[in-house]
Amino acid sequence: MKTVHVYVTLKEGVLNPEGSAIERSLHALGYEEVQKVQTGKWVSLQVEDGPELAQRVERMCEQLLANPVIEDYEIQLSDEVTT
Amino acid sequence: MKTVHVYVTLKEGVLNPEGSAIERSLHALGYEEVQKVQTGKWVSLQVEDGPELAQRVERMCEQLLANPVIEDYEIQLSDEVTT
Repeated sequence: MKTVHVYVTLKEGVLNPEGSAIERSLHALGYEEVQKVQTGKWVSLQVEDGPELAQRVERMCEQLLANPVIEDYEIQLSDEVTT
Repeated sequence: MKTVHVYVTLKEGVLNPEGSAIERSLHALGYEEVQKVQTGKWVSLQVEDGPELAQRVERMCEQLLANPVIEDYEIQLSDEVTT
């Protein structure tokens, strides 16, 4: 089994209210030095290794894990092999 | 300014309904080879560099970015310096 990490982020230009709310809260807590807060989701999967692993994970992202209209995704295939 | 990435995950043993739902959906889409789906949140911040940067980010996590009762967090200080 291979461990796959998928990082989902909002596309450039798409408003990130969660990020803005976190930024305001951090400033209110006294962390004025913080700027440009971005948030996103990550998903880790364990997948049986196979010849088309990367393509299949790509399709999983397109179909379910990310919303292609407003989100970008990055796939990291880790060498971590689990039994 | 330094870019800081914070990865927030549920603690071991805490139920992850989102992960289970994603796993079931992937199986329904025909991706039977997927197991152990975990989800989490990541936050990226731009922070003015300073002597206590790591400690301050640690405190930001404890106070706001993660729920210490059910979540773990990992801080990555990237060398990416932005103007």
